[in-house]
Amino acid sequence: MEIKYAVIGTGAIGGYYGSRLAQHNKQVHFLLYSDFDHVKNNGLKIESCDGDFELNNPNIYNNVAHMPQCDVVLVALKTTQNEVLKDYLPQVTHSKSIVILIQNGLGVERDLTNWLPDLDVCGALAFIAATKIGKGLIKHLDLGRIMIGAYNFEKNELLQQVITDFNESGIPAKLSDDLQRARWEKLVWNIAFNGPTVVLNSLTDKLMENTSSRKMVYDLMLEVIKGAQAVGVAIDETYADKMMAMTDKMKPYAPSMKVDFDHKRAMEIRYIYTVPVEVAKASGYHMKKVEQIEEQLRFIAER
Amino acid sequence: MEIKYAVIGTGAIGGYYGSRLAQHNKQVHFLLYSDFDHVKNNGLKIESCDGDFELNNPNIYNNVAHMPQCDVVLVALKTTQNEVLKDYLPQVTHSKSIVILIQNGLGVERDLTNWLPDLDVCGALAFIAATKIGKGLIKHLDLGRIMIGAYNFEKNELLQQVITDFNESGIPAKLSDDLQRARWEKLVWNIAFNGPTVVLNSLTDKLMENTSSRKMVYDLMLEVIKGAQAVGVAIDETYADKMMAMTDKMKPYAPSMKVDFDHKRAMEIRYIYTVPVEVAKASGYHMKKVEQIEEQLRFIAER
Repeated sequence: MEIKYAVIGTGAIGGYYGSRLAQHNKQVHFLLYSDFDHVKNNGLKIESCDGDFELNNPNIYNNVAHMPQCDVVLVALKTTQNEVLKDYLPQVTHSKSIVILIQNGLGVERDLTNWLPDLDVCGALAFIAATKIGKGLIKHLDLGRIMIGAYNFEKNELLQQVITDFNESGIPAKLSDDLQRARWEKLVWNIAFNGPTVVLNSLTDKLMENTSSRKMVYDLMLEVIKGAQAVGVAIDETYADKMMAMTDKMKPYAPSMKVDFDHKRAMEIRYIYTVPVEVAKASGYHMKKVEQIEEQLRFIAER
Repeated sequence: MEIKYAVIGTGAIGGYYGSRLAQHNKQVHFLLYSDFDHVKNNGLKIESCDGDFELNNPNIYNNVAHMPQCDVVLVALKTTQNEVLKDYLPQVTHSKSIVILIQNGLGVERDLTNWLPDLDVCGALAFIAATKIGKGLIKHLDLGRIMIGAYNFEKNELLQQVITDFNESGIPAKLSDDLQRARWEKLVWNIAFNGPTVVLNSLTDKLMENTSSRKMVYDLMLEVIKGAQAVGVAIDETYADKMMAMTDKMKPYAPSMKVDFDHKRAMEIRYIYTVPVEVAKASGYHMKKVEQIEEQLRFIAER
């Protein structure tokens, strides 16, 4: 079965995964806007730690209405743009399509299935360091694996085929049977560092070095773990210690929200902060310190 | 009885109150450092909303060892400098002296009586808008009343006389029988605005205008009120609403910690944040959001 893939959001993540698939002769249709003319003339280039490659003549579109109906839609937009999916997805899908949200945070699948209840939706977490460094030019620095979980349907042949296609294309991919756990686990780190690096205008290493901010970061992790436990996702508190140890070993790092803030782009506050706080609160646990970071971020964003 | 007053910390607050007393023929001895030569030559000038005045030849010292032993010592240092009191106070007091800490926050009296157990200590809260705008030059903008409470001794004739002296000198002064309540009440506003204006680099009006920061400020107030209740100081939650309404009416304002931060001076983190958090926690209430502001402030201060 040849799957038609669409990529909505051809940034670092969507561009990298889509290009890998196309490199291995999968049929991929990319939606792009600002880079359209450049890619039309120059193709898509990936500078990868696993070897550079390029797509000389990718299928690209600057209007979703011109795209074919695809079997699988990879959504790699910033979640701040998710509202456009209400309009885009009905145009690029058919009744059996699967939409895979390769996005951070909690609640993206919930919102999407509220907007478009008939859609088969997956969530996915990408463990990859990649950056778009120029028009049609993506730098893949490290890692690359992806974990995909069905949100509102039983995993089917098409989804199994996606996993196969990914792995055949040099992307280590796995199906997760517990998407919520995967999302909450990733939130532990994301909540502890994304907001605080913005609020305190700093990088991970500085927050780890200073006794007070280190305690704050650790407390945030513990709150997220307790929030997860409240909603029935049993993450052990030692997971926070693991994340601390991992971060101690990292080079100074700007989380995606800090990068967005520095580039004056919208920050993904809703799905990284607001929804997790709401969801945990609805299950009886108030993540107060997380909530306060959210409030500070919204002030900063709206200023 | 003629009382000898010492003023330790001749900034806006100490300078104003000391000068008022001296203006009304009380005997006042001022300790100053950087302004000493200027005041020696030019006196102390007060530009007051109640009428300007000056002291042409005040009793000034730049060495505490040269000061007389005084009956009443008004301490108006920033609390960040309180360690010097261990050394200074034994030199300017006698066995019957009263030391009045005109300072913000919680725990200043406790620390001082731990250091110097034989001292009769009062706390005081100044309700005044005053700024030192130049060498030997203080601008008194508004208000001026002071509330004094004995911390570790029974109120005596000397303390009554202080109240009389203050009132005779145009300073509305009252004895408080509940210093802890007065301190906690003032903390409600101080905690909600001092740290957040530093962390979010803003003024009171901006924090009140934005929905998210307004909620943060209000939540901080409620936490302080619950902290007060935990230690047995019954402040009603409607007090937070009163403080919000009051702040809504204020002109854009930089709390003292914001002013200190902007001038790269030490911030009074310990007595406005650390001690209140510790004290409430010891009584079973964890002021989590307040604690997080403290952690952020310490990071900012130590950066």
